[in-house]
Amino acid sequence: MTASARPPVCVVGLGLIGGSVLRAAARAGRSGFGYNRSDEGAAAARTDGFDADTDLEAVLRRAAGEEALIVLGTPANTLDELLPTIARLAPDCVLTDVVSVKEPVADAVARLHPTARYVGGHPMAGTSESGWSATDAALFDGAMWMLTTEDDTDSRAWLTVADLALDCGAQVVPASNDAHDRAVAAISHLPHLTAAATAAVGAGESGLALRLAAGSFRDGTRVAGTAPALQRAMLEANRIALLNTLSETIDRLTAARAELRDKGSVEVVVDDGHRARLAYEEMASTPAPSITGVAPGDDGWAAELRRQAHLGHTWQR
Amino acid sequence: MTASARPPVCVVGLGLIGGSVLRAAARAGRSGFGYNRSDEGAAAARTDGFDADTDLEAVLRRAAGEEALIVLGTPANTLDELLPTIARLAPDCVLTDVVSVKEPVADAVARLHPTARYVGGHPMAGTSESGWSATDAALFDGAMWMLTTEDDTDSRAWLTVADLALDCGAQVVPASNDAHDRAVAAISHLPHLTAAATAAVGAGESGLALRLAAGSFRDGTRVAGTAPALQRAMLEANRIALLNTLSETIDRLTAARAELRDKGSVEVVVDDGHRARLAYEEMASTPAPSITGVAPGDDGWAAELRRQAHLGHTWQR
Repeated sequence: MTASARPPVCVVGLGLIGGSVLRAAARAGRSGFGYNRSDEGAAAARTDGFDADTDLEAVLRRAAGEEALIVLGTPANTLDELLPTIARLAPDCVLTDVVSVKEPVADAVARLHPTARYVGGHPMAGTSESGWSATDAALFDGAMWMLTTEDDTDSRAWLTVADLALDCGAQVVPASNDAHDRAVAAISHLPHLTAAATAAVGAGESGLALRLAAGSFRDGTRVAGTAPALQRAMLEANRIALLNTLSETIDRLTAARAELRDKGSVEVVVDDGHRARLAYEEMASTPAPSITGVAPGDDGWAAELRRQAHLGHTWQR
Repeated sequence: MTASARPPVCVVGLGLIGGSVLRAAARAGRSGFGYNRSDEGAAAARTDGFDADTDLEAVLRRAAGEEALIVLGTPANTLDELLPTIARLAPDCVLTDVVSVKEPVADAVARLHPTARYVGGHPMAGTSESGWSATDAALFDGAMWMLTTEDDTDSRAWLTVADLALDCGAQVVPASNDAHDRAVAAISHLPHLTAAATAAVGAGESGLALRLAAGSFRDGTRVAGTAPALQRAMLEANRIALLNTLSETIDRLTAARAELRDKGSVEVVVDDGHRARLAYEEMASTPAPSITGVAPGDDGWAAELRRQAHLGHTWQR
């Protein structure tokens, strides 16, 4: 693998994901510091020995001085306020983010900080908890971490961000923003909607129903327990792709209802779901092969990384 | 609590649930034996030190001789074959079952073994595994175990079956068959359909999507991994109640789609789901109060047990 610089890490927003990046980077021996809007979050990080401040401008000036890698860990709806400040105070820093949906972030960056050396990211890890108290240096161990890999992506900035993901214990999945957003609509955002609807139907049935609820309800509705504001920020930012997967889901459930009503059978929906689950379990239990034979900066490197990623390979150390 | 006899336990069908009942009864010091259709299952149980046979008639004659409590642990679609044999060979034994849906079993018993001292049951425990190799003496520890509690239920048979559930480490939830079947449609069967549809949409999106799948997909689709034949037997037996909850789910998701398309918001579905999940978590984390002031056999005992169960109380030791 190509060597890259390992600049200090400046994390903006010390919630579950951003705070865990700061912890994981420190675990890997990297220097880092952070900004958090609330006094409580910054104070909690300082209590745990991390360098955290509530003064955004001071933090960004420091990032510029140290040529830090800036990691945006705040919800998508904060970008209109943050990006112009970053463009003004730390314009040359490599910039990434750990916000779920990639096209809206890329659009905001193009609009508000057009000269940014920006490479979007999305670590596929999380819990239904939130805030600094839920952060964990091991949160990304073994996780997949998507990195924006478009034909015009800056290869040196890409390597800088990829090394942070690898330092955090993750593997890198190169993808275009568009393909990523469609993928996470299907495997991350849709499960929030089906969990929410399933929970509401179960709780609405009767107190007896909730008393009898066991494993299938507990696991199937877990993500409905995530803070509503976080769920909404994530899902609403991916509106078009989510509408498509939601429509497909409604179509599948409507077909299942017709099959059950007319034939007394749930064969198609159960068989399709079982086959899909087995495909997932097989992929989850098989180590991903490493991307080989290409280095960022080579001619056509981005397309080749995406091609190998579509075969299931990942960028590893 | 009223004392009751603790007869030997005769389990018909040594799969995950039936086999675990045999193990849990043995753990509580009760004698027991079982029938299994396949040589492999019976041999596996014998290897683990249990008394298991593939000769149904011999097992049932023994049950009659020992006045055993017979526990039906086979899928609903085996009842037409089993019940006449039980009626012929062990007509006086108290009979229960651990099959999910209660009204079809009660109907089959009324049709094929009308003099049975039958009390239906449904332990709310399970995994996506199946077969003897998945059995576990601790499977029911802390679980809710529904028992049919109708106005014409035999109170002595009820106590005999309730004591088995308590011996297995469960708490008893008294309910009418109709209320139970509607409840499990909502909190057990519907989650299978939403998990199946969610899994199929995710796996159909792209290989990239499955590679990026993480916690929300893993937990939200877990029950889709259950053997299709077991899922179908359970869900198809509860057709009417499942159609109702499935229709409500489709309505909720269709409303969510309209809100997302027209307003860019998922507020209603996310808020409803979050409130429901919190209600579930609160109930799951609070010990159930014990049913008090009534003993099976008292005037109006069944109605009083059902009334207290609807308040969230359970029958405990």
